[in-house]
Amino acid sequence: MVKMKKTMLACMLGSLAYMAGGYAVAQDKAAEATERYKPNHELIVAVEPAVGQDPGQVELGKKLWFDPRLSRSGFISCNSCHNLSMGGSDNLPTSIGHNWQEGPINSPTVLNSSLNFVQFWDGRAADLKEQAGGPIANPMEMAFTHDLAVEILESIPAYKEEFKKVFGKDEITIDEITQALASFEETLVTPNARFDLWLKGDDNAINDQELRGYLTFKNSGCVACHNGVAVGGNTFQKMGVIEPYVTDNESAGVAGVTGNDIDRMRFKVPTLRNVELTYPYFHDGAANTLAESVDIMGRLQLGRKFTENEIEDIVAFLKTLTGDQPQLVMPILPPSSDLTPRAKPFD
Amino acid sequence: MVKMKKTMLACMLGSLAYMAGGYAVAQDKAAEATERYKPNHELIVAVEPAVGQDPGQVELGKKLWFDPRLSRSGFISCNSCHNLSMGGSDNLPTSIGHNWQEGPINSPTVLNSSLNFVQFWDGRAADLKEQAGGPIANPMEMAFTHDLAVEILESIPAYKEEFKKVFGKDEITIDEITQALASFEETLVTPNARFDLWLKGDDNAINDQELRGYLTFKNSGCVACHNGVAVGGNTFQKMGVIEPYVTDNESAGVAGVTGNDIDRMRFKVPTLRNVELTYPYFHDGAANTLAESVDIMGRLQLGRKFTENEIEDIVAFLKTLTGDQPQLVMPILPPSSDLTPRAKPFD
Repeated sequence: MVKMKKTMLACMLGSLAYMAGGYAVAQDKAAEATERYKPNHELIVAVEPAVGQDPGQVELGKKLWFDPRLSRSGFISCNSCHNLSMGGSDNLPTSIGHNWQEGPINSPTVLNSSLNFVQFWDGRAADLKEQAGGPIANPMEMAFTHDLAVEILESIPAYKEEFKKVFGKDEITIDEITQALASFEETLVTPNARFDLWLKGDDNAINDQELRGYLTFKNSGCVACHNGVAVGGNTFQKMGVIEPYVTDNESAGVAGVTGNDIDRMRFKVPTLRNVELTYPYFHDGAANTLAESVDIMGRLQLGRKFTENEIEDIVAFLKTLTGDQPQLVMPILPPSSDLTPRAKPFD
Repeated sequence: MVKMKKTMLACMLGSLAYMAGGYAVAQDKAAEATERYKPNHELIVAVEPAVGQDPGQVELGKKLWFDPRLSRSGFISCNSCHNLSMGGSDNLPTSIGHNWQEGPINSPTVLNSSLNFVQFWDGRAADLKEQAGGPIANPMEMAFTHDLAVEILESIPAYKEEFKKVFGKDEITIDEITQALASFEETLVTPNARFDLWLKGDDNAINDQELRGYLTFKNSGCVACHNGVAVGGNTFQKMGVIEPYVTDNESAGVAGVTGNDIDRMRFKVPTLRNVELTYPYFHDGAANTLAESVDIMGRLQLGRKFTENEIEDIVAFLKTLTGDQPQLVMPILPPSSDLTPRAKPFD
């Protein structure tokens, strides 16, 4: 009973800080995202295949996604850190940026990222389009500028033509670049996870252990934050509610955006979809395994020490959240022209 | 006439040094490779689709090709420097290796590399299988060891199972890893270049300028070295026959293998297939454009100053060597297990 109270307190604190952060618009978006999917008696909602994207934008966005010419080195593309062969992540604690710089935070998966209520761990981008411009110009990541990225694309005849065809404009701007990237990213949802099939009525889609794991996950309070269509991604919460989270990582969380001290160590709850593929875990990538992560979450967020069996069950449940991975034909990128500025990665 | 003599002299010197280098076996392989393809009245032979590879090895090799866990950082895969979205190259002067080290030489394209008589610029690997082990263990490149790469794969259940299925053995060794990679690479040929269609009798496959460019290419002696099915890739030749090639690059060429001073600045002639996509050019990646490359080659190798028109024609011809690029569905890589050693890219 005491434990349950602590859990409720944690959630209420989360919600209060969340409102204080002024993310009312974001909250609407989360509700809207869930609305698009079938409601269910459970707090977790099945994800459905993406619909409605502009095919031209998606194809162009796919090229840009894989194009390292959007980075200063000519070596790093979106896919370098959000690798679609590896659950849309890089499976590193924190990412490698320009000149092998150590990134400040774990790369979140791009899979199902359209279902997040805001983007980045600290929610500093409202949507995927706004997010997409970030890494290109971040000196720790792709280390380029939007102007130079535009200059590169403008110098490549096949890109020029494709932008014109897709957007109907003579000039390429960062606006079209990020719009195309966002449209591509919106297609990267992963339907047909076994747990979704179970939600839809196929009782045999998960086994007894997985079901037991789900019930423990639900009844112990994990689902208070990890819910909705993304099984997360729809609120900010403090990392370390009952006990503080010990880390060398200096990320300030939402406080970096709001400037409010109460938002320190507050982060967007990550999606648990495909979590089997997106190790290591937490914003600092410090937890190598799901078992370790579940143990830490139980103690720090819920004040509950899961038994080994409970952890095994929950991990088994979490692995039922792996959905169909995007089957992508690698794009063939249009070659640079003689006028395209050449990358000088060692300058 | 004087110029023609110089050209012949250059080719003879090349052949002599080649024989002196003791690459008789390699020469047989080049002949064999050409034999697989339809003979033609021209010195250039059309490339045909790959046949005969073991499908299981190819699929496994494709996964390994895209798997950065074969590198110490967990960040660099084969595809990082031989990007199949970019003509099988990285479009950088020299490659970026572990810890952002500057590589010593331009990454050659993997496309049609099975048609090369030996592998690497200096021919230090006899075939693709031998080549594949090099970058994994090269401290300037993927900076791993074969033993650690094997340890990683052994710890991943789905890989373990796939190796067993494909090779019928209980243990994974570097031998199977490189064999699978080589089998995948053998599929990366690019048939149906417009020039190949022309070789096969379609007179309309290339236009007048392209044909003129080809005739200049042939009649001025370029074809003496750039011939066969790969339009190169079947002899070593000295870079800088008539005039020395000036470069900051310290690669010794074949001399690094043979220890013979006569082999300094001698390199495997690169394939010209897909050369439109594989900029920048030469072993040091110092030439940014095809026009610049043709000009330099004419002066240094043939003692001939091509006119601007001739250069434009030859460049137009070279672009007819772009063939069908491999259409690859990106593999979904099997996730690491709890026992898989985690990469520490910043240690």
